[in-house]
Formats: sequence, C-alpha cells, structure tokens
Amino acid sequence: MRLASLLGPELKQILKEDPDQVRELLEEIHPEDLADIVGELEPDEAAELLARMPAEDAAPIFERLEDDEQGEIAELMPPESVAQIASEMAPDDRADLFSFLPEAMGEEILEKLEDVDPVAAEEVREIEKWPETSAGHLMTTAYVHVAPDVTVASAVEAVRAHLENHDENIYNVYAIEPGDKLVGLASIRDMLLAKPYQPLGDILRTNIISVPPELDQEEVARRMAKYDLNVMPVVDEKSTILGVITIDDIVDVLTQEQTEDVQKLGAVEPLDVPYFKTTFLTFIKKRGVWLFILFFGEFFTQTALRHYDPVFEAIKGAAYYVPLLISAGGNSGSQSSTLIIRGMAVGEIKLGDWWRILIREAAMGLVLGIGLAIVGFARVLMYPEQHADFALTVAITLIGIVMTGCTVGAMLPIVLKRVGMDPATSSTPFIASLVDVLGIVIFVHVAKIVMHAVLAGAVPH
Amino acid sequence: MRLASLLGPELKQILKEDPDQVRELLEEIHPEDLADIVGELEPDEAAELLARMPAEDAAPIFERLEDDEQGEIAELMPPESVAQIASEMAPDDRADLFSFLPEAMGEEILEKLEDVDPVAAEEVREIEKWPETSAGHLMTTAYVHVAPDVTVASAVEAVRAHLENHDENIYNVYAIEPGDKLVGLASIRDMLLAKPYQPLGDILRTNIISVPPELDQEEVARRMAKYDLNVMPVVDEKSTILGVITIDDIVDVLTQEQTEDVQKLGAVEPLDVPYFKTTFLTFIKKRGVWLFILFFGEFFTQTALRHYDPVFEAIKGAAYYVPLLISAGGNSGSQSSTLIIRGMAVGEIKLGDWWRILIREAAMGLVLGIGLAIVGFARVLMYPEQHADFALTVAITLIGIVMTGCTVGAMLPIVLKRVGMDPATSSTPFIASLVDVLGIVIFVHVAKIVMHAVLAGAVPH
Repeated sequence: MRLASLLGPELKQILKEDPDQVRELLEEIHPEDLADIVGELEPDEAAELLARMPAEDAAPIFERLEDDEQGEIAELMPPESVAQIASEMAPDDRADLFSFLPEAMGEEILEKLEDVDPVAAEEVREIEKWPETSAGHLMTTAYVHVAPDVTVASAVEAVRAHLENHDENIYNVYAIEPGDKLVGLASIRDMLLAKPYQPLGDILRTNIISVPPELDQEEVARRMAKYDLNVMPVVDEKSTILGVITIDDIVDVLTQEQTEDVQKLGAVEPLDVPYFKTTFLTFIKKRGVWLFILFFGEFFTQTALRHYDPVFEAIKGAAYYVPLLISAGGNSGSQSSTLIIRGMAVGEIKLGDWWRILIREAAMGLVLGIGLAIVGFARVLMYPEQHADFALTVAITLIGIVMTGCTVGAMLPIVLKRVGMDPATSSTPFIASLVDVLGIVIFVHVAKIVMHAVLAGAVPH
Repeated sequence: MRLASLLGPELKQILKEDPDQVRELLEEIHPEDLADIVGELEPDEAAELLARMPAEDAAPIFERLEDDEQGEIAELMPPESVAQIASEMAPDDRADLFSFLPEAMGEEILEKLEDVDPVAAEEVREIEKWPETSAGHLMTTAYVHVAPDVTVASAVEAVRAHLENHDENIYNVYAIEPGDKLVGLASIRDMLLAKPYQPLGDILRTNIISVPPELDQEEVARRMAKYDLNVMPVVDEKSTILGVITIDDIVDVLTQEQTEDVQKLGAVEPLDVPYFKTTFLTFIKKRGVWLFILFFGEFFTQTALRHYDPVFEAIKGAAYYVPLLISAGGNSGSQSSTLIIRGMAVGEIKLGDWWRILIREAAMGLVLGIGLAIVGFARVLMYPEQHADFALTVAITLIGIVMTGCTVGAMLPIVLKRVGMDPATSSTPFIASLVDVLGIVIFVHVAKIVMHAVLAGAVPH
C-alpha cells in the first residue's frame, strides 16, 4: 500500500490515459503493486481501464485484486471483457472469481467463456462443483501429467511446454495411467538429478500424500504444513487425479481461517472483507447478532439476583461482590476455551481427549481458584463491616466459580465440535455469559451453607 | 498421529531392535510419520535409537520432531552424535536446534560441530546472531548462487550440484558479484524456458523483492504472501545476500504467530508447546499471571459499587442490573478490540487510521447501544416494581456503556501498538475488566440525572 500511495497520482494518470503503457509498467513493477494502485481507483475507473487493456495484461492485475474488488469491478465491465480476462487467469483464481459473482452474472460470463476458452469454462464448472472451503474448490487443474513409461527428458519437455502457457510455478510431474489414475510423481528436483534418457519410472515416487476433494481446507493446510509440501494432488476414491493444491493458496487459507476464528472468539460473525471495506450496515448485523444474544443471556443474571433478593438483603454489601466473583469465572473460562479451541484448530487436541482435558482443567481450576480465594479472603477482611464468615463464603465461591469456568470453558468447544458446530462459536463473551449465571447460583448456595445462621430461612431454591 | 498409533507398537519394536532397518523404512514411510513414532517413544529410548543410527538417516527424522522434543532428546544424547546429526540437517533447522538448547550444551555441541563440519558451524553462528523472530533467524544459507556472466546451462548445473548435497527444494538461482552483492535472480522456470547456451544475464530479474535481516517474521510472512513468493532473499543494506527464506518456514511462522495471538486474546501468556505437553506448573504460571491481574482489576467494581451504596440503596433492585449492563460494555468492547487487533495483524489497519476508527466505532456503538437500549427499556418495565424513570436510566446507560466499550476496545490496541507493546495484550477479558468499572460510573451518573428526584442528595461523586 505504501508504494501505491507514493506513486499513486502519476501512475493513476498513466493508467487512465494510456492503457498500452501497462505492458511496460508490468515489466518494471510487480503486478501485485499495480493491483494495489488499480484497487485504489474508483470501481468504474478500474473497470474501464481493465476492459480497455489487452486481456493478457489485465489478467495478472485483475487476479491480484481483493476478492470483493474483483466482484465489484467485474460487475461494471462488459461480460465479454470479463470472460477474456478470465481465460487468461490461473484456473484456481478463475474459479474463485465465479464463486463471488452474483449467480446470474456468473452464468452469463461463464457462457461467454465457453466461446473464448471451452477448456477453461469446463474447469470452472469442475472446481465449482465442490464446496467453497473444500480441497476441490482450492485446487487448480493446471498441473503437468505424463504417461508413466516416458523418459525423464520427455517429462522435462512436458514441464517446459506447460510453463510456456502458464504463469505458475511447477514442482512435480504426475504420472497417470489412462482414466487419469495417479500412479506416481517425480519432482523437478528428482528430474534434475536423474539422467535425461533414464525412464521416468526409475525415479517415480509412489507413496504419494494426497487429499480427497471433499476435505476441508483447514485440514488440507494442516497436512501440507506437516509434510512440508509445496504442492499436493487432489485424488478421488478411484485414485483419479482431479487437480493440485499449491502452497500459496494454503498461506491465504491459513490467514483467512485464522481471521474467522479470531473474529468468532471476539463474538463477531466473520466478516469476509477488510475492516475499512466492511459497510456500516454489515458491521451492525455481524456484531448485533451476538451482542443481542449475549444481552438476552445476561438477563438471567438479573433474574437470578432478583430471585435471591432475600440473601442479598440479609448480607449487607454482598451484591457488590457479584461482578468481581463472576468475572473470575468468565476469565478462567475464556482461558480454557481459548486453549482448547486453538488446540483443536491446529490438530493437537482430538475429541477423544475430552476426559483427560476435563480432569486437567478441573485440577487447574482448583489450584487457580485457591490462589484467588486467598487474595479474595484477605480483601473482604479489609472492610470492617464484613466478618470472617463472609470472607470464607467469598473464598469458597471463588474456588467453585473458577473450577466451573475452567471445566465449562474447556468442554463447550468440544461439545460444539461433537455436534458439528464450529468450536470457535464458544467465544470468550459467550463463555463469560454462561458462567456468570452459574457463578451467582454458586455464590448464593455457598453463602447458605457457610452463613446459615445469618441467612436462616432467607434462601430461595 | 493416526499412523503413529496404528503402526506404533510393531514399528517401535523394529526401531528399538534394529536401527539399520530404518533406512528401508525411510524409503517406505515419510520421515514425518517416522518422526511421529519416534516422538512417541520415551525420550531416553529415542535418544538411544537416534544415536545408534547413521547420522544421515537420523537427521531427517530428528529435524521433523517438535522443537521441545528435539531439545529434550538432544540433552540425552552424546554431544558428538548430536553434532553428527546437526551436520546433516538443513541449515535453518540446524540453527533452530541451537536456539532451544541450554546455552552451555549448545556451545559444547557447536564446538564438536566445528570439527565435523566447520561450514555448518559458521552458518549456525551467522543465523544465531539475529533475534529469534527475525528474518535473519528464519533464513537458510542453503541457496544456489552463480556469477552473473555464466550461461543458463552452467546455472542449471550449479542447481544440480547443490541438489546432490541438499535435501531442500530449489526455486531460484541468485546471481551475485564479488562480495556477495545480489544483482539478480533467475527461477528454475525461467531457466527451463531459456536456451541452455544463452547467457544467464538475458533472463535475470533485477526487480527483486527482498527483506532485511532485522525484519520481524510476521512482516516477512505478510510480504511473501502478498507477492505469492516461495522463497525470498534476505539482503542487508549493502545488497549483500545473507540467505533465503522458504515458504515452508512461513507456514510454520503463520501458525505459531496465530497461536500466540489467540492465546493472548484469551488472556493466557503464550505457551511454546502443545496443550498436552505443557506442564501443569507452566499452565498455572501462564494463566495465573493474567487471572490475578484481572482479579485485582475487578476489585475496582466492588469498590465503585460500595462507594455508590447510597444510590443502590435508594433505587431498589438497581444493583441487580449491574452485571447485565457492564457485560454489554465488555462484549461490545471485545468485538471492537478483536476487529482492530486482527486488522493490524494482517496489515489492513495502520496506526494512522486511529481517528477514522474512533469515529466509526463511536457511531457503531451509538447504533448498537440504541438497539440494546430499546430491549433493555422494555425489559425493565416488565417488572411491576420499576418505573419508567428507571427504565430510561437503564436505556441511556446502555447507550453510554456500549459507546464506551466500542471506543475503548478499538483504541486500546492502537495505543498499545503505539507504545511498542503487542496489541493482542488488550485481550477480551482485559477490555471487559476495564469497561466494567466505567460502566458502573456511567450507570450511577445517568441515574443521578434521570432520577434526580428519587436520588436527591444520595449520589457521591
């Protein structure tokens, strides 16, 4: 963005007045930086510019725009121009474009693309078949394949021929039998180390790490990271190769999934676009949903406190300890839920581990609760109006609340995952709201036991 | 992990009894999976096994163990064996190993390494010079360089020669002048497309995207993701190439930085190791710090409530609304802080944007606050004991609290970043604690204005 703001005005002028110069600019400036600048134009200006440029120059800029910018600009361009540009894009970026265009418009452009580049159109339909966050949707169909019985030299030649028509890096050659059955792969590295007239079969690796097309992209990312792969084939149950997933898309997936997780943890419905590009109305909706749910949830704190009114009447000042006590539960609960959610996201924690976690968190809650209890006990006694029995009530309540916070906070994400929901839904504010009501109930019942003389007959159930 | 538990017992037996078979296993099973299995052995068993294996077989397994496992096992092995294995490791993994060994032991092994492989030892010292989360520490010194005036064929030959001694992928050849001054690069792709006897100079790219060695790894990751790079050179201010950073390390950095951010957001001091490998004591420390800080912070809610006792005495039941009201502030504040923290982490939000954010968040707080106020107003009137003036107090308080939550939640991460702290320190629980006290003050002062008749003379300042 810094480059864009430095060079902005002049370049914008050149881009607007003389689209032919873009070819020269492309050689000087990384297309990513040109995309930054085009992204700063008004959408109609950008659309006009891209439509006037030769499609092969427009494509590298267009495919580097943010997803939402691509959609916005494509809607303002003639469908023919979009189809022309799409035909020059990398297959996975092309498929992405169609997934965020309005459906009718996407279909119109796809029909035009069928005239321009029928193979590309077919590929889009193939990739679009799969759910948006699946391996199938993430893959590109631009991979190099050869028959298993060729020589290393002709496999290298196949790579060269592919590179002449594609802008992407190639790491591997896939050996496939008729029917696209994947039988092995050889890396560029393997081929460079082999002799040119050696049969490719000599150097084929057959223990291939692949993923099925339905697999969720987070799991794909995990697997590629684990095996340090730059590219991984997508293979169906009949060993048919459907495409390959490259590491640059995985980096994007990791960032995008992480943003979603963090937003959910902060009780915001995930936004699809950056902060400043999100409209005010979208924010109100995405934040409002959770803010209202949590607000309704907190009604129960008021209901519970009102219900136990006789207790709070009987113990002067007790109601003033409520926020202090329940927040300890919310805080310990959010620590536990965060640890478990992240542990599950990176694959360290499995559903079957729940009982080990439960024991561990209960023990941790006990120790942390005792720590807070000691401080809380001393704190109460600092006030002359309170006696040791109330200090003891506060101390025991803290232990109970922190243990509840730790166990509820740790178990809720696991339960959510078990029933097929995203564990990150058990956000910090959500756990806090849940634990708040439990905290009040614990407080009152501990008081009933410890201070039974004071409270004789005052505690409702 | 699944493979490990399936094949575990038998393989463990083979690994223990006959380390020579490991070579055969290495051809059958991915070293990553063997590392999983070795990681499940007791540390002393793993140390004995790795020490007995030929170093070139042990290295691919050892370098794939978790960081903490590597440290633990290395401490149990003879320093000579560790040095032997280290000499066979990739330069960046090797440097990593030394960064988590106890210093005295690291120095002892490094001295042994100097005998085995002086170049490797020198590289470790070079990489270790840089801070642990910097580009310099992340780089590998295993890159291919040639003089700018060679032919494409001899550059390819340099790649081939390098590959024979290194297990890593190579994407580029770097053209350097005497003094290691980087003047250009050619990708394998460029070289495959060029003619073998063409001068390399014909195809050299000179607009190179590089990073300085001091740059933080998060910014390195951002830059590589932005430009879709698989490898990026690290270059000092004199254009001297120091090493290159590869994408597989970036994937690890992203995951590690994200885990840290999420843990901070949940008010846990970042853990360096997975949930089940973290000791109980470490958890108590890493969670206890924040739990106590937040607990002390919440003391102020009790102090404030006690201070305003006459108000709560005068308005029957008002104290029971406190958790409901202050949690609305905490929730809206955590939404704002999460959005801003994440926006800054991915580079969408800069410090200079603070005033735009402030205006936006205040407006959002106003609208969301009015929404909650309407619901809150209705809720209070459901109780026969409360009158419209108290319902109005609750409504106005909600607007004030939600606006406070949004603006404080949004500004705090920016202020933290400004003073050089990690914005993620302003965790959800931290924002909630901060906003809780403000909420009580707002509540009492709104009540004072709206219900002045009821409260005549009852409000302390």
